[in-house]
Amino acid sequence: MESQQALQDRFGLPVAFSLRASLDDQADPLARLLEAIGKAGGRLGQIQLAEQHHGKTVYDLQLFVKDDEHLRQVAAAAEGVTGVEAVALTDLAMESHRGGACEMRSRTPIRSNTDLRIVYTPGVARVCKAIQADPAKARQFTNVANKVAIATNGTAILGLGDIGPLAGLPVMEGKAAIFWEFAGISAEPILIDTRDPGEFVSVMEKLACGFGAIQIEDVAAPACFQITRELDRRLNIPVFHDDQHGTATIVLAGLYAALKTTGRKIHQIRVAISGAGAAGTAIAEILQLAGVDDVVLCDRGGVLYPGRRENMNPEKAALAERTNKDNVKGTLADAMRGRGLFVGVSQAGLVSKEMVRSMAADPIVFALANPVSEISVADAYQAGAAVAADGRIMNNALAYPGIFRGALDAAAESITTDMLMAAATALAALVPQRQLMPEMMDRATHHAVAAAVMQVAGQA
Amino acid sequence: MESQQALQDRFGLPVAFSLRASLDDQADPLARLLEAIGKAGGRLGQIQLAEQHHGKTVYDLQLFVKDDEHLRQVAAAAEGVTGVEAVALTDLAMESHRGGACEMRSRTPIRSNTDLRIVYTPGVARVCKAIQADPAKARQFTNVANKVAIATNGTAILGLGDIGPLAGLPVMEGKAAIFWEFAGISAEPILIDTRDPGEFVSVMEKLACGFGAIQIEDVAAPACFQITRELDRRLNIPVFHDDQHGTATIVLAGLYAALKTTGRKIHQIRVAISGAGAAGTAIAEILQLAGVDDVVLCDRGGVLYPGRRENMNPEKAALAERTNKDNVKGTLADAMRGRGLFVGVSQAGLVSKEMVRSMAADPIVFALANPVSEISVADAYQAGAAVAADGRIMNNALAYPGIFRGALDAAAESITTDMLMAAATALAALVPQRQLMPEMMDRATHHAVAAAVMQVAGQA
Repeated sequence: MESQQALQDRFGLPVAFSLRASLDDQADPLARLLEAIGKAGGRLGQIQLAEQHHGKTVYDLQLFVKDDEHLRQVAAAAEGVTGVEAVALTDLAMESHRGGACEMRSRTPIRSNTDLRIVYTPGVARVCKAIQADPAKARQFTNVANKVAIATNGTAILGLGDIGPLAGLPVMEGKAAIFWEFAGISAEPILIDTRDPGEFVSVMEKLACGFGAIQIEDVAAPACFQITRELDRRLNIPVFHDDQHGTATIVLAGLYAALKTTGRKIHQIRVAISGAGAAGTAIAEILQLAGVDDVVLCDRGGVLYPGRRENMNPEKAALAERTNKDNVKGTLADAMRGRGLFVGVSQAGLVSKEMVRSMAADPIVFALANPVSEISVADAYQAGAAVAADGRIMNNALAYPGIFRGALDAAAESITTDMLMAAATALAALVPQRQLMPEMMDRATHHAVAAAVMQVAGQA
Repeated sequence: MESQQALQDRFGLPVAFSLRASLDDQADPLARLLEAIGKAGGRLGQIQLAEQHHGKTVYDLQLFVKDDEHLRQVAAAAEGVTGVEAVALTDLAMESHRGGACEMRSRTPIRSNTDLRIVYTPGVARVCKAIQADPAKARQFTNVANKVAIATNGTAILGLGDIGPLAGLPVMEGKAAIFWEFAGISAEPILIDTRDPGEFVSVMEKLACGFGAIQIEDVAAPACFQITRELDRRLNIPVFHDDQHGTATIVLAGLYAALKTTGRKIHQIRVAISGAGAAGTAIAEILQLAGVDDVVLCDRGGVLYPGRRENMNPEKAALAERTNKDNVKGTLADAMRGRGLFVGVSQAGLVSKEMVRSMAADPIVFALANPVSEISVADAYQAGAAVAADGRIMNNALAYPGIFRGALDAAAESITTDMLMAAATALAALVPQRQLMPEMMDRATHHAVAAAVMQVAGQA
C-alpha cells in the first residue's frame, strides 16, 4: 500500500489560490507560465483575463496545490518565467469565508415607520396571537418550518478531529451555504460547547421548538449515535446524521446506477463493507432493505461474525447476527474475495489492487474514506473495476439538501429509511449515461430528491 | 383617569389591513369611500392605484383599525358606498410574517464543483486550521463577529405576556429583521424552552461561543435581571437587555433634546420616575451619571425612600438609598409635584392632567408604558407640558441596532453605561428642530450611534 502522502497527492490538490500574474506582451509568456506551474506540480483551474494596459496583460489563474510549501514552490516557478510578474496570491478558501459563509437577513423591507409598526409592534402581536391560538400556524407565519439547526460540539470536524466548535464553525457555515444554495433552506450553525452527550441532548432539546429539523454534524462517535437516537426519540422533528443517513442514501443511489451500467440485479450482488461504525451500519441496513441478500462488514479487527469476541459491542454483535450469512471470518481481503460490491467508509489506503482483482467479475468499488479513499479510482479501474468512485464523486451534498427540503415540506416527524430509499431512487434516475451520480450544480437534482422524499413522507 | 379602551383608541390603531376596492368610474366614489371609512373610525395610510380597466379603478388602501370587530364595521361601511366593491382584505402584519421575517442565506455563490470544493471540503479545512491556530481569526473568517443571539423563553412577549417561545417567535424574527435593515447585523432568534433562569443561563452559556453578542428579549422579570447579570458575568461578549439598556439610552437622548428645546441645564432638572423595575432602575442610574442631581422613583407602593418596609427587596432598598435626596414619601402624585421631568415605564393611564399641572413650569413628560402610555401625548400637552412623548416617538429601535453595531465592531466585552451615554449624545445631536428624536428610517442615525459607541468602547 502507498503512503498517506502519495495517496493525498493522487487524490487531488486541496489548497486553492488565485495567482494574479502580469505578463509582458512582448515576451508573450502565457504558455511558458502554464508549463512552469504544471512542472512544479500545481494544477490550474479557471484562467481569467483581468486587464490589459501599457503593454501588459494581467491574468487571474486559479491554482491548486498541496500545501503552503508547495505553493511557494509553484509561485517561485511562476516568477522564474521571463516576462511574468506575480502581482498577488489570494487564498480562495479563506476569501470565500471572509465575514462568514452565511448570514441572517430580513425577508421584509422596513422603509417607513408604518412598515415598522406592521412587522414589529404593535402589528406583530396579531401574528403571535394567531400562533398562540393555533401553534400549527407557526409553519406559515414564521421561518420555523424552513429552519434547520446544524448542531455540533466540534469534536470531529472533517478530517481534522477534535478542534472545538469555534474552529469548526466554517464547516457549519459552509454547510448552511450549501443548504441555501441547493434547497433554499435557512440553516443555522448551532455551536454547543460541551463534550457530554447528555448535556448536548438536553441543550438541543430546549432549542428544538425553534427549528423544523436538526442536522447533527461532526460530532465524534460514539457520542453522535447516542445524541442522534436520543433526540430522535424525544423530538417530533427530523433528526438527521449525515454520516449515517446521507452516506447510506448516496451508496444506494450509486449502486442503482452501477447496476444499470453493468446490467445486473440487486439481489445478485454480494457486498463487502469496510467500516462498521455509523456509516457502515446504515449502509448495511439500507442495502438489505433494498434487496441485497449477502452483506459482510469489516472493522479494524477484521470480519464481523456471530460469536466474535474481540473489539465487539452490542451494536456490532447485532450487526453480525443480521449480516454475514456464510459466516465468513478473517481479514478485509477475505471479506472482499468474490464479492461484487466493495463499499469503503473506513481509512485511506486499506484496499490494494490485488484485493480488487480477487472480487467477482466486473466489480463495483465505492471507496469513500475522506479525505483520502481506501483505493484511488484510477487504481481500482486498473485492477479491473467496472465502476469505481470516491467521496468526490459520491458526495453527500447530493442527498441531504433535497432530503431536508422534502422532509420539511412534508412536516415529517423523522427521516425514515423509506425516505432515504426514495431519495436514492430519485438520484439514480437522473444519472447521465456512463456516469454514476447526477449533476450536483443542477438545482433540478435537489428538487427531484425533495419531491421523492416528500411523497414517501406524505404516505407515512 | 380614562378607561384602558379609551386610551387604546387614542394611542393609535394597531391592526393594519389592505383593502382592495374596485371603484365604478361613473360614480367616482373615492371621496365618499374615504369619508365612510373615516366615519366608521378607520384610519387610512398609503393609497395606491392598483389597476384601471373596463370602467373600473382599483385601489389598495392601507387601513388601520382597532380589532377584527372594528374591521368588519369599517369593511361594511366601505361596502355600503354606492359604486364601491371590496374585492379583498389582506392582513398586513400576517403577510409581512408569512414564511418568516428573516432567513439564513449564503454569502457565497456555489456555481461549480470547484466553488463547492473551495467553500466546503477540502478547502474549508484551511479556514478551520487558521482559526484553531488563532481563535481571534474567527472574527474575520466566520460570521461570529456579526452575530447576535436574540434569546427568549417567551415568558413576557410584548404586552401579551407568557405565551411561550414559539408564539413569541414572530417578535424575535421582527427584531432580527430590524437588526438587519438598520445595522446589517445577522441576528438569530434563539428560543429556549425553559422557565428556570438557571437553566436558561446554562443553555445560553453553552451556545455563546457562536455569537458576538446576546440580546435578552421578552423574558419576564425578575428572571430577566438574574439572567442578564449572570450571563454578563460569565461571558466575555456583550449581554444586552433592551428593557434596561435600550430604554435608558432613549430617555437620556430625549432629555438632552428636550433640554435644548426648553433652554435648561441637566443639573437643574429634578426627575420623577414611575416604575422601579429593570427600566426604571437603569434610567435612574444613567440620569444620575449624566448629571441629574435629584431623582425619585415610584412603584405600585408609592415613592421609594430609605427605610420603606412594604413591597421592598434588596435592589429597591439600594435604589432608595441612591435616590430621593429630599426623602419624599407618598404617592406618584406626591413624587411628581414640582418636578421638571416625568418618566413613565409603568402602566397605562397612571398619570392625570392634574398631576402634570402640579409639575414645575414647562415640564417634560416621557410616558413610555407599552402599548398604552401613562398619559397620552395630547393630554400631556393640554396640561402644559413643554415636551411630551410616548413609546411610539421614543422607540428603542433608535438605539439598539447602532449600540450592537458599535459594540460588535469594537469587539467590546460588555455594554457599559459610558457606551449608552455616548449613544444618547449621538442621538440627541441628530434631532431636527422642534422634534425629540432623530429619523429612525435614516440609516445615518444608526451609523452615528454605532460610531459613538465604538469610539467609547475603543477607549475602555
